[in-house]
Amino acid sequence: MAIEVSSLFSKLGLLSLFSTSDQTIVASITLFVTLLCGCIVIGHLLEENRWMNESITAIFIGLCTGIVILLTSGGKSSHILVFSEDIFFIYLLPPIIFNAGFQVKKKQFFRNFMTIILFGAFGTLISFVTISFGAVEIFGRMKIDLLDIGDFLAIGAIFSATDSVCTLQVLNQDETPLLYSLVFGEGVVNDATSVVLFNAVQNFDLTHISSKIFFQLAGNFLYLFVISTFLGVIAGLLSAYAIKKLYFGRHSTDREVALMILMAYLSYMIAELFDLSAILTVFFCGIVMSHYTWHNVTESSRVTTKHTFATLSFIAEIFIFLYVGTDAMDIEKWRFVRSSPGESIAVSSILLGLVLIGRAAFVFPLSFLSNLAKRNSSEKIDFKQQITIWWAGLMRGAVSVALAYNKVFGLLTKPLIRLLLPTMRHSSSMLSSEPSSPKSFIVPLLGNGQDLEAEDEVDKSNQVPRPTSIRMLFATPTHTVHRYWRKFDDRFMRPVFGGRGFAPFIPGSPTEQSVHLPDHD
Amino acid sequence: MAIEVSSLFSKLGLLSLFSTSDQTIVASITLFVTLLCGCIVIGHLLEENRWMNESITAIFIGLCTGIVILLTSGGKSSHILVFSEDIFFIYLLPPIIFNAGFQVKKKQFFRNFMTIILFGAFGTLISFVTISFGAVEIFGRMKIDLLDIGDFLAIGAIFSATDSVCTLQVLNQDETPLLYSLVFGEGVVNDATSVVLFNAVQNFDLTHISSKIFFQLAGNFLYLFVISTFLGVIAGLLSAYAIKKLYFGRHSTDREVALMILMAYLSYMIAELFDLSAILTVFFCGIVMSHYTWHNVTESSRVTTKHTFATLSFIAEIFIFLYVGTDAMDIEKWRFVRSSPGESIAVSSILLGLVLIGRAAFVFPLSFLSNLAKRNSSEKIDFKQQITIWWAGLMRGAVSVALAYNKVFGLLTKPLIRLLLPTMRHSSSMLSSEPSSPKSFIVPLLGNGQDLEAEDEVDKSNQVPRPTSIRMLFATPTHTVHRYWRKFDDRFMRPVFGGRGFAPFIPGSPTEQSVHLPDHD
Repeated sequence: MAIEVSSLFSKLGLLSLFSTSDQTIVASITLFVTLLCGCIVIGHLLEENRWMNESITAIFIGLCTGIVILLTSGGKSSHILVFSEDIFFIYLLPPIIFNAGFQVKKKQFFRNFMTIILFGAFGTLISFVTISFGAVEIFGRMKIDLLDIGDFLAIGAIFSATDSVCTLQVLNQDETPLLYSLVFGEGVVNDATSVVLFNAVQNFDLTHISSKIFFQLAGNFLYLFVISTFLGVIAGLLSAYAIKKLYFGRHSTDREVALMILMAYLSYMIAELFDLSAILTVFFCGIVMSHYTWHNVTESSRVTTKHTFATLSFIAEIFIFLYVGTDAMDIEKWRFVRSSPGESIAVSSILLGLVLIGRAAFVFPLSFLSNLAKRNSSEKIDFKQQITIWWAGLMRGAVSVALAYNKVFGLLTKPLIRLLLPTMRHSSSMLSSEPSSPKSFIVPLLGNGQDLEAEDEVDKSNQVPRPTSIRMLFATPTHTVHRYWRKFDDRFMRPVFGGRGFAPFIPGSPTEQSVHLPDHD
Repeated sequence: MAIEVSSLFSKLGLLSLFSTSDQTIVASITLFVTLLCGCIVIGHLLEENRWMNESITAIFIGLCTGIVILLTSGGKSSHILVFSEDIFFIYLLPPIIFNAGFQVKKKQFFRNFMTIILFGAFGTLISFVTISFGAVEIFGRMKIDLLDIGDFLAIGAIFSATDSVCTLQVLNQDETPLLYSLVFGEGVVNDATSVVLFNAVQNFDLTHISSKIFFQLAGNFLYLFVISTFLGVIAGLLSAYAIKKLYFGRHSTDREVALMILMAYLSYMIAELFDLSAILTVFFCGIVMSHYTWHNVTESSRVTTKHTFATLSFIAEIFIFLYVGTDAMDIEKWRFVRSSPGESIAVSSILLGLVLIGRAAFVFPLSFLSNLAKRNSSEKIDFKQQITIWWAGLMRGAVSVALAYNKVFGLLTKPLIRLLLPTMRHSSSMLSSEPSSPKSFIVPLLGNGQDLEAEDEVDKSNQVPRPTSIRMLFATPTHTVHRYWRKFDDRFMRPVFGGRGFAPFIPGSPTEQSVHLPDHD
């Protein structure tokens, strides 16, 4: 009976009293949330400074906090939260990638789709081979023979992966749409390649590369890419269909929003469960949801989902950078460096050099190939843009010191863009006078030709298509695919799954009148 | 070096490959999210059925899942997720209580404030004493002497606490505003009393109750109540001030929403950290945020926060009920019952009887006292309402089988209200034809006198105050306090912290024109 009562206590948990270990969790969360608030406020205050943004503020605040904790704990630890990569992959990454897919300029993305695949699949492979064999050569000569061939291949696989979270931070979709879609798209496709390569390193004997193994790898990639994308598309279409059918005539904002969030998350988790590329899945789920589901819900739901996804992504990003800041002070990590500083610096420099070479080895040749296929000169990737792609893609490793360290590249990317692409300077300085966040949809459209995809963007859904856009549509043959897709979409997809102009009209909906808000003013 | 590489792997975590134990977590989350989606869809389909709602659907689906898991795992376990009360208190409870504070009808709540305190503080004390001493008497005679006096007092403390989450499920703020504010308000204040009582049971020698101990307890309660409320109010005001000052002239929806969410959560965690009543804190934080902060942000932020808070609360509630369903199949819990079924039933029945008596011992006398203080007969709590309060407050224990079991009370509460308060029947049947969720703000105002507080509600912020409301304001002396508060608020608080009509005007804000949406139509 006494046992029952004590289990009652623990089961009922009615009295919000925590045990000592729980108290530590509470203290950690409190400190972390306080720092997050601080980052937002300080980041906002420093927004006008071109070198600063929330993520750099977060790393800096994280560093300071790490030092303070290091000093107060007597040099034992710099961590506030014990943060595993599980937290990153289960909770923080999904909202960031989903939001990127949800807010991506779809036409820009699909227009460059072949180039993105080229970079993400073949580029990563080239980079992998370059880094792996470079590492074998150089480290072999340096007599660092603790590593076997498998380790070198793993190094190649790790360092040929780019980080899509970092791309979001340094490239702006509104300022440099072509670069953004190429580098970010590459980062997303890249994830599938990494999974394939990493599995290959573990399961194949890559020391004797035959054409058979190569085709097996290619087949694996194709399978993974198609299945992952398919899963994301299915999840998105299912949510569109469910909301269109179920909520017809009686909308409920809270349920719609909940269902969208849960379905997106579900697609990610299912992909993880079946060892697919969850990043690809949730990214395409975001694209499909913004194309169909988003148009089937009430106006309140539209505003809510748009900002909720952006806010969740925003908080997750700051969280990651804040953690990276405190993590940089981790003593364990620096112990190795301290024991052999010369070797550490040498290894780091060699890896850095290999990554630079590996990236150069595919960006320039593949850009050349991609340009050959394009007739319209405005769509070609010029040399300056190639340099930016090469440089911006160097950032990798969102959850490690590597990021804090590579953030240096990120810091330099913005000025590099300004330096290399002076035509952008005018428009971006115009933008910097705008007080909104980078993701805010108040940002006016840029005047340059690459940004004609406005009609495809979520927010500007009710804008009248501009004549230049229609002219463009017929001017270049690459748009033929798009035209056929539009026909297919209008005839078969939208009538079933809804979407703009095909969302069911709700006669009794009191918010219906205000759907076309921007037109009123 | 090999160690460094393996730590690189785990640190970088670039390749989304999970180890086997992680795979279990992923599988659990996948299953749980799938069930959540199912609950929302099925709950929505069954909405017109008066006996069903999402929470009952969730318990039912949880039960079925528990049985399936029990059968497939060969009778080992019925759990999907290992779910501790920490998850409940750290992640699920804050959004629910905050949203309740954010959406509460403030005037209704504060008009009944004295009655709520009477119920929540003195009522809980009366119930505690009744249950504890009843248990001592009855269990003493039954020769169940495994428990000492401290255990009996703990039983009293546990069973005199009501559960505010369950109240939200069965009472509707729009249908029965007076009952809702009384029972829910009691549940919130009750939390502070529970903390005090539980601390008292652990730290005082309650076998010899002297007037000194009584005053000490009263002092503790007063301290806890005031400090917890104060913390919530401060957090709310701070967010209002920060957003008003920082974002003046350059709003950023994502940052505003992030800041509101984080500040609210921070207030809860700080209260937990200092062993205060976090429920009280976050509830008052919600009230202050809806009164000040909410009016200082952009219109997009208003729509977003309103629905985000409701959605998060909604998901958290379904999550809890889903878990409760699977938990009911827990074998460990039923092992005790199976070993001595007679005793279990006897103990349960006695406890149930004691709770019923303990609750009756304060609801009826305190309602009588409360009625004495009120002159206006429409504000008095009539006998039928007293019975409903007595009954609706019986639900307790959100995270245990106790809830699934007590949910029976919840199920019976709705018909009881219809039976006892037939005047409500008309309006509630009118409501049930409304397709919206219970929390939806599309629900029209009810025609009865208790619902004149519309002007204080978040959504109807731009409605013209109706003359009856003004008449009421001067008709009864209890409104004097409110009048003075309004004066104080308008003169000192709103100019500093913003709020309706005092939010700074943003000249350049493109959404400014559409702020007064309801007036346009």
